[in-house]
Amino acid sequence: MWIVPEREIANLMTRDVAFDAVETVFAAMASGEAYNFPVIREAIGHEDALYGFKGGFDRAGLTLGLKAGGYWPNNLARRGLINHQSTVFLFDPDTGMVRAMVGGNLLTALRTAAASSVSIKHLAREDAKVLGIAGAGHQAKYQLSAALEQRSFDKVIGWNYHPEMLPNIEKVAAEAGVPFEVVDLPGMAEADVIITITSAFSPSLMADHVSPGTHVACMGTDTKGKQEVDAALLVKAAVFTDEVAQSISIGEAQHAFGEGLIAESDVAQLGAVINGTHPGRGSADQTTLFDGTGVGLQDLAVAASVVNLAIAQGVAIEVDF
Amino acid sequence: MWIVPEREIANLMTRDVAFDAVETVFAAMASGEAYNFPVIREAIGHEDALYGFKGGFDRAGLTLGLKAGGYWPNNLARRGLINHQSTVFLFDPDTGMVRAMVGGNLLTALRTAAASSVSIKHLAREDAKVLGIAGAGHQAKYQLSAALEQRSFDKVIGWNYHPEMLPNIEKVAAEAGVPFEVVDLPGMAEADVIITITSAFSPSLMADHVSPGTHVACMGTDTKGKQEVDAALLVKAAVFTDEVAQSISIGEAQHAFGEGLIAESDVAQLGAVINGTHPGRGSADQTTLFDGTGVGLQDLAVAASVVNLAIAQGVAIEVDF
Repeated sequence: MWIVPEREIANLMTRDVAFDAVETVFAAMASGEAYNFPVIREAIGHEDALYGFKGGFDRAGLTLGLKAGGYWPNNLARRGLINHQSTVFLFDPDTGMVRAMVGGNLLTALRTAAASSVSIKHLAREDAKVLGIAGAGHQAKYQLSAALEQRSFDKVIGWNYHPEMLPNIEKVAAEAGVPFEVVDLPGMAEADVIITITSAFSPSLMADHVSPGTHVACMGTDTKGKQEVDAALLVKAAVFTDEVAQSISIGEAQHAFGEGLIAESDVAQLGAVINGTHPGRGSADQTTLFDGTGVGLQDLAVAASVVNLAIAQGVAIEVDF
Repeated sequence: MWIVPEREIANLMTRDVAFDAVETVFAAMASGEAYNFPVIREAIGHEDALYGFKGGFDRAGLTLGLKAGGYWPNNLARRGLINHQSTVFLFDPDTGMVRAMVGGNLLTALRTAAASSVSIKHLAREDAKVLGIAGAGHQAKYQLSAALEQRSFDKVIGWNYHPEMLPNIEKVAAEAGVPFEVVDLPGMAEADVIITITSAFSPSLMADHVSPGTHVACMGTDTKGKQEVDAALLVKAAVFTDEVAQSISIGEAQHAFGEGLIAESDVAQLGAVINGTHPGRGSADQTTLFDGTGVGLQDLAVAASVVNLAIAQGVAIEVDF
């Protein structure tokens, strides 16, 4: 079996490879060739940690396994370790034997960034010029880097609840050679694409902050109770997601769905757009919204890609298990 | 992190160590210090395989993780591999980082054997002399070896649906220096302890095959629909289990419970007997029954023990992960 330690991932994985892996597995989910298992998520009553498993099987890519790990909120302060800790385990679907173990921390950041990027490719207007981002934390940098590759953006506008963090994303825009501007939330109306990547429990981006024709990728809501955008925005937008069941239960759509403003059938799979079985954006002035909830199959897909890269580049550790 | 491959387990693990690990974690489950997570079990639609995860956390032993794997029915015929394939992954509960990966195939056999053995220690009469076993497959040999260590048995009696397999267990009895006799099911009435270890979907051992004062350990039923013993036997016996929720849903007690013959409150945790918070056997002529359903914490407990042994004996593979 193969081992790819966390420290190798940054040298191996590219945004392109993550993009292709996520786009392909979203398509396989929509065609029924890949499915996610129920998620296990436990507050274990030790170190205030949340721990669990996200598994799945992709029959098309023959990728089987899980991501295990979670959130240890005291890691950084007490031990100098990052708080999100995860490891991906891949199994051989022909035999049930373990095939690979892969550090999952950076991969999780990259697959999350790839998801909004895939949604921009397939749902944003081709002529999108202004990219808005709400959120300026660690993950926001990954989302912005990946998004900038999808259209010829000529400006990034940013908002964050804590404005002192905005230089985080200004730096990413500068590295890409794109001007950056701080805006207030109503100023987001200038954007053609907006990414929300916060961990808020009440909406900041309201329906009237979003102009017709904009594509909004909501990437921060993955738990019951979290909310980044106004439920009314989901009513006026064409809503897409990675996995419908998660979208309406723990994703951004939980609120609009829970309040009866939209039905489950109003939420489409992004994979169906990739496959061409859903037309996607209907017109230049339609608002589209991608509810990125995060699924185990994304983790397995990027991990499988990185194992192949690691083997090819001679940096995978082989263990006779 | 540490790796203990499957091939090392037989040299490292002893029945004594497995017994202690399982007895300790059953006690921790009953005291509320350890708990199992919901089980994921998926028919993945490839190779007719069943795949899933059994996880848990033992706050007392600081053991966190999961067993992943399942049943690949074509492995032996097509590839010369065993059909049950599993791997245990242990995590550091202080940080969420992976601590060890351990081959889980032999460990599963040993922890299952340890469970019935723990039940015999705590529930069988001290003067038990005749050990009955229904079942003669691969796992039956492990159950018998472990059980023979718990009392001074002077005879083993065996029954199997396929009698041509009985030499499997006759050999184990012979190695322990205990006489062996083939019986029909009514002949089981001679036994003081009976282990059932079949994968049947209808009962073979009926209530009138079991004499008063006998301890019965039902080890084969771990799925909805399976059944080894008459539901009436659970009515006349004091019923114990590893985990009550599993016992009444996928264990042997599913039938008596489902038919309304017993209530959930009629099923006690074996761990409570170990802890001394349940008196266990009430009298010499009471029939006791242990419904061994198999829980993830058993796997984690034996895996944690074997990692310690492997490190101490210098055979664990250390990987800088």
